[in-house]
Amino acid sequence: MSGTPNWRDLVVTMDDRSLDALALAADATVESLRETTSGPRSDRAPAAIRALVRSLDICPDEPTELATVLADFATAAWTHGVVPSDPACVAHLHPPTLQPAVVTELAIAATNQSMDSWDQAPAATEIELYLMEWLAGLIGFPDSGSGVMTSGGTASNLLGVTLARSWAAANAGVDVLKTGLPPEAADWRILCSDQAHFSVHRAAAQLGLGRDAVIVVATTSSGSLDVSALDHELQRLESAGRRAIAIVGTAGTTDLGAIDPLTEVAERARRHGAWFHVDAAVAGALLLSDRLRGELAGIELADSVTIDFHKLWWQPFNASALVVRDEARFELLRVRSDYLDRGDELEGMVNLVGRSLDTSRRFDAAKVVVTLRTLGRCALSDMLEHLLDLASYAGSMIAAEPTLELVATPTLTTCVFGAPGASADDLRRVQQRLLARGAMVLGRTQIKGRAALKFTFMNPLTSNEDVERLVGMVVDELRAAVGS
Amino acid sequence: MSGTPNWRDLVVTMDDRSLDALALAADATVESLRETTSGPRSDRAPAAIRALVRSLDICPDEPTELATVLADFATAAWTHGVVPSDPACVAHLHPPTLQPAVVTELAIAATNQSMDSWDQAPAATEIELYLMEWLAGLIGFPDSGSGVMTSGGTASNLLGVTLARSWAAANAGVDVLKTGLPPEAADWRILCSDQAHFSVHRAAAQLGLGRDAVIVVATTSSGSLDVSALDHELQRLESAGRRAIAIVGTAGTTDLGAIDPLTEVAERARRHGAWFHVDAAVAGALLLSDRLRGELAGIELADSVTIDFHKLWWQPFNASALVVRDEARFELLRVRSDYLDRGDELEGMVNLVGRSLDTSRRFDAAKVVVTLRTLGRCALSDMLEHLLDLASYAGSMIAAEPTLELVATPTLTTCVFGAPGASADDLRRVQQRLLARGAMVLGRTQIKGRAALKFTFMNPLTSNEDVERLVGMVVDELRAAVGS
Repeated sequence: MSGTPNWRDLVVTMDDRSLDALALAADATVESLRETTSGPRSDRAPAAIRALVRSLDICPDEPTELATVLADFATAAWTHGVVPSDPACVAHLHPPTLQPAVVTELAIAATNQSMDSWDQAPAATEIELYLMEWLAGLIGFPDSGSGVMTSGGTASNLLGVTLARSWAAANAGVDVLKTGLPPEAADWRILCSDQAHFSVHRAAAQLGLGRDAVIVVATTSSGSLDVSALDHELQRLESAGRRAIAIVGTAGTTDLGAIDPLTEVAERARRHGAWFHVDAAVAGALLLSDRLRGELAGIELADSVTIDFHKLWWQPFNASALVVRDEARFELLRVRSDYLDRGDELEGMVNLVGRSLDTSRRFDAAKVVVTLRTLGRCALSDMLEHLLDLASYAGSMIAAEPTLELVATPTLTTCVFGAPGASADDLRRVQQRLLARGAMVLGRTQIKGRAALKFTFMNPLTSNEDVERLVGMVVDELRAAVGS
Repeated sequence: MSGTPNWRDLVVTMDDRSLDALALAADATVESLRETTSGPRSDRAPAAIRALVRSLDICPDEPTELATVLADFATAAWTHGVVPSDPACVAHLHPPTLQPAVVTELAIAATNQSMDSWDQAPAATEIELYLMEWLAGLIGFPDSGSGVMTSGGTASNLLGVTLARSWAAANAGVDVLKTGLPPEAADWRILCSDQAHFSVHRAAAQLGLGRDAVIVVATTSSGSLDVSALDHELQRLESAGRRAIAIVGTAGTTDLGAIDPLTEVAERARRHGAWFHVDAAVAGALLLSDRLRGELAGIELADSVTIDFHKLWWQPFNASALVVRDEARFELLRVRSDYLDRGDELEGMVNLVGRSLDTSRRFDAAKVVVTLRTLGRCALSDMLEHLLDLASYAGSMIAAEPTLELVATPTLTTCVFGAPGASADDLRRVQQRLLARGAMVLGRTQIKGRAALKFTFMNPLTSNEDVERLVGMVVDELRAAVGS
């Protein structure tokens, strides 16, 4: 590691010499993380961070010692990053990560399997399939259930809605992937709640249906889909001669953590011949908990389910899954490739390219499996339950705090609140001042048109005392903001 | 690390104690890689690998010591993986990886920045932007050039074609993301060569245009787009009242490594008002080489360009970029999100969610930047030039070998060949026997309907002697296959 490197020493092989050097380099990398700021982030402004970053020569002609590069990089990237393991980092579904997963990233990168074809990932293909089938079983799908890893909830939702589109088209005798959207697609609609993730709208846009093809269904005050409103919308569609091709239920909305009444939504989907997709990116982890699993009743009735491992399973980005109740459904998007998936290969070979919208794809399943086996289900369940308890505790503190006002009783790991008499601009100033001086990375959103602040608890090391401190900081900042 | 772990010790924080433990765990992970098979892969059959994988309990209730988990995992995953750093791993554009990138994966995962919003990735956002603007400059784009990291060439091509679709729609006064494909979209066509990557067809399918909307243009014997055939197709479209919304040029086809005549294609795109996308997933790295850069002349005329860092920049999966000549074009896919991108934030804050089809997204730019700074441009250029020389050398050996037959003179890092008198089934058997006994991971494809074998040289440590050995193995295996 010392002296100017020669590229021949930097190509990672499985030889002892290369692995010895890799271990040293890994240590140096961990060392460089000690540059990370204390607190949730530094107090540096965007322009100052930009200037610091641009002071680095991004691609010099000549090599530089790795330790030097890592140190310089840390001064920019990690000193002025955000720290998801800090208790005051509570804006987003942005978790700290688990050690078994983090170190497995090193192995994933060193071995560099590619999940598109078996001959680029022999054991890895089998491990991903095993993980997906296990997850399908956890959901309660029949033995035909399986899935594929994707880059995130947005990609999983896109894949789910893509399958729904192909399904609707196939039922109309159209191969939509080949011949494109038929004229009758102008009448195809996708229904989801007004709290569903924007990736559902984006999927409709991407697929050529347009965001206008998404019918937004009203929610109750807790943020879960109102079934009578769904019935009303379905009836309106029917009267207008339109067709519901998919209904998307959300299990764990981004802001309120609400879970739609899945059993009742499933029943509507079945009755109307619509694909039932459940976006359980957030709440999928509840399946691990004996106490919480029941909240997802009805998820086993879905045609497809999104679960993000990079949320409440504490995996580093990216790690998500799209799980289907019947793996034969993946035939809806199969493509043939002369070089990747010819169908005349070794007996038992599976090429996962046929079930993914990606081609080259990293072996993210590895980190999930190593995590599950190291921590075990009960620990993951404890961690999750602790976060729900934290959100509840924050909710009760805010309910008792006259300067604040709870928007809804926390159901998952978020706590959304406003302040009586405070304007949207006051709330914006609270959030920005805390962010600007690096004191707290606080969430800010809108619930049904009304501005709100949000705590998102993702760090299982956070304590009730931390919550008290966070609430206190918001109260103080609000006083300053309203007073200023 | 010894004894049954407690989850509290496994949440990665930036405290010294947690980082000390992380370094030890990283060492244990590297240690587990010593289980990797020697040779390009083990000789185990798919069913046997499946059985071995399924002997692991994927999610026990109770925790297990990390070292034990890593060792068990290695026995399955790495012993029966494929080894891209082995010289006999030559099937795909599947590279070994570089140490600076591999260890940076550890930091990416430990710090877990998410690229969708500035407050989840302050410095990381600036670093990705800086890398993208540097890459835009390398392409020869004006100062308005920028880009976004994606999960791979398939995703980058999809994003490029998505922009093309929105551009065509906007020119017709339609907001396609909002209202969906208009009726006139039935006449929209995308042109690319018959050697273009299947992801172009897939993008058309995904976007609702259908694979039939892709007009496949003939190529010359070298595999590059035939401009007179393009002119012919464009004229046919015009006569039929159809509209070329995009022309995709390929710089480095998967099989032959061919580079389309980009300047001439650009001129046609301009004349017909079509978006010009260049899929330089493979050949983009040539921009780093003084000797080879000229091969990409005309790339600077593109509207958008795909470049994969996880190919000839030796980055671990996934790392790709979609670069545009004018970053204002990203407005074509902007979405507003109340919680991620409100437009009323700290001065200078950029939320990259607006230019990506993903939401949560890992900080892959980090590994690219650390690699570029550690190796320097000249080393990367030397490595690339060496691979081209290897492919040339393989080509000359095969041309001189009577039992083999070169399909085309190598232009990049692949060498495609057949064998006089050998049937497609003979070639299949050659490839499968070598794969089955773990001797070589050889490529197999079809060029214009004709079966062929393929070497793809991605490992800069491979020598001419290795090439001689590989050719000899294929010749021996072919004799055995034809004789059997």
